[in-house]
Amino acid sequence: MVKLGRFIFRQLVEYKSNTYTYILGCPATRQSVIIDPVVDTAERDARLLKELELDPIYGLNTHVHADHVTGTHALKQIFPHMKAVLSDKSGGKADKLVKDGEIIKFGEEELEIRSTPGHTNGCVTYVSHKHKMAFTGDALLVRGCGRTDFQQGNPRTLYKSVWKQIFSLPDDYDLFVGHNYVGVLQTSVAEEKALNPRLTKSEDEFAEIMNNLNLPNPKQMDVAVPANLEDGDPAFIKH
Amino acid sequence: MVKLGRFIFRQLVEYKSNTYTYILGCPATRQSVIIDPVVDTAERDARLLKELELDPIYGLNTHVHADHVTGTHALKQIFPHMKAVLSDKSGGKADKLVKDGEIIKFGEEELEIRSTPGHTNGCVTYVSHKHKMAFTGDALLVRGCGRTDFQQGNPRTLYKSVWKQIFSLPDDYDLFVGHNYVGVLQTSVAEEKALNPRLTKSEDEFAEIMNNLNLPNPKQMDVAVPANLEDGDPAFIKH
Ligand SMILES: [Fe+2]
Ligand SMILES: [Fe+2]
Repeated sequence: MVKLGRFIFRQLVEYKSNTYTYILGCPATRQSVIIDPVVDTAERDARLLKELELDPIYGLNTHVHADHVTGTHALKQIFPHMKAVLSDKSGGKADKLVKDGEIIKFGEEELEIRSTPGHTNGCVTYVSHKHKMAFTGDALLVRGCGRTDFQQGNPRTLYKSVWKQIFSLPDDYDLFVGHNYVGVLQTSVAEEKALNPRLTKSEDEFAEIMNNLNLPNPKQMDVAVPANLEDGDPAFIKH
Repeated sequence: MVKLGRFIFRQLVEYKSNTYTYILGCPATRQSVIIDPVVDTAERDARLLKELELDPIYGLNTHVHADHVTGTHALKQIFPHMKAVLSDKSGGKADKLVKDGEIIKFGEEELEIRSTPGHTNGCVTYVSHKHKMAFTGDALLVRGCGRTDFQQGNPRTLYKSVWKQIFSLPDDYDLFVGHNYVGVLQTSVAEEKALNPRLTKSEDEFAEIMNNLNLPNPKQMDVAVPANLEDGDPAFIKH
């Protein structure tokens, strides 16, 4: 029913927390992954996966989110063989804990795991070299980056992660981020290396900027973090 | 600075009216077009065009919008040689009025104009055959379509437009729409031909559905329509 032969890629927006969810599918085998689903839009995502005749074998979280509850647990109720994936450095529960350098395979597609701590200890970036795409979560945002003032945030760690693991990718790789609040859906290595107002600074200046943001905590943080450490299991969602 | 050699394509979200704006650019010449910009996000779009070193030669409106004021007038203040484009059937003012079958060229790229009336008289769909993409505005939405109960709406006209001008494209063409309220950013000809709950019905059933939606008018309609008939000129925006 849907096109075969072309890589299947969908970006989706969860409007309440402005979170981006991604579906990637292998056209030959229909095996697929979903990156950073949100519990509020899990049913929408499940419907789309079924409509596109995709079989989601992994639900990949880039990190333990503080601003929304992950949709991986909810999706596993619909796709019981789906495995929730999280970094081994996250301190959270998942069906598969991955580490830096590991490869996730789905059909004829694969994603390289790159550890990119600094926003949290367990942040990872998923890279598709074949399609020149990377999914950075909150490590790197469009002309910005994730905050470093809660969970296990550390600006110097984040600075090194971005330069070593993301900006070392070829300039023409497209970057797909965790959030954007002005409706810009993607960026690229070349753009951020040239235009990111924080990460083009020195490490010292970067740390100075990040340590003085004085942001309020995310509204959902006290609910989201404990729940996400348990893969979004509703038994751990405080109401 | 940004990647050359690959077609430049960006989808953007205007969160207030959930409108999608598109930037398409020719990598060889940097000539580009912007489809359905919104006045509220015109500065964001201008910044991105400059950052990507793109030269926007056309600002393309798919139709005279009722839910937001177009950004073409505002962008022309920043890019004075940009030409605002609208259908010759729209009744609106623009620098270039286009008709069915006409081709818009920017560098080594082109878009075919397909007249798709029914939501309004002046609705057009822009088609890139090279990249297998069509920009449908509000004629066809993801699993839906634009309403037909105001402006020059007519369900039977819309039904014929979609089947003749959009569903006649090859199945593997990606479709990029004017709005989506649940965060699904794109669809395809194959999907909508199989899954669109309205347009897979007969023309009679479709007309019946569309004539019984009983929707309230868009909040911004009385401001947006008169302004958009004048390309979004602020002199025509009622406050
Ligand atoms: Fe985060
Ligand atoms: Fe419209």
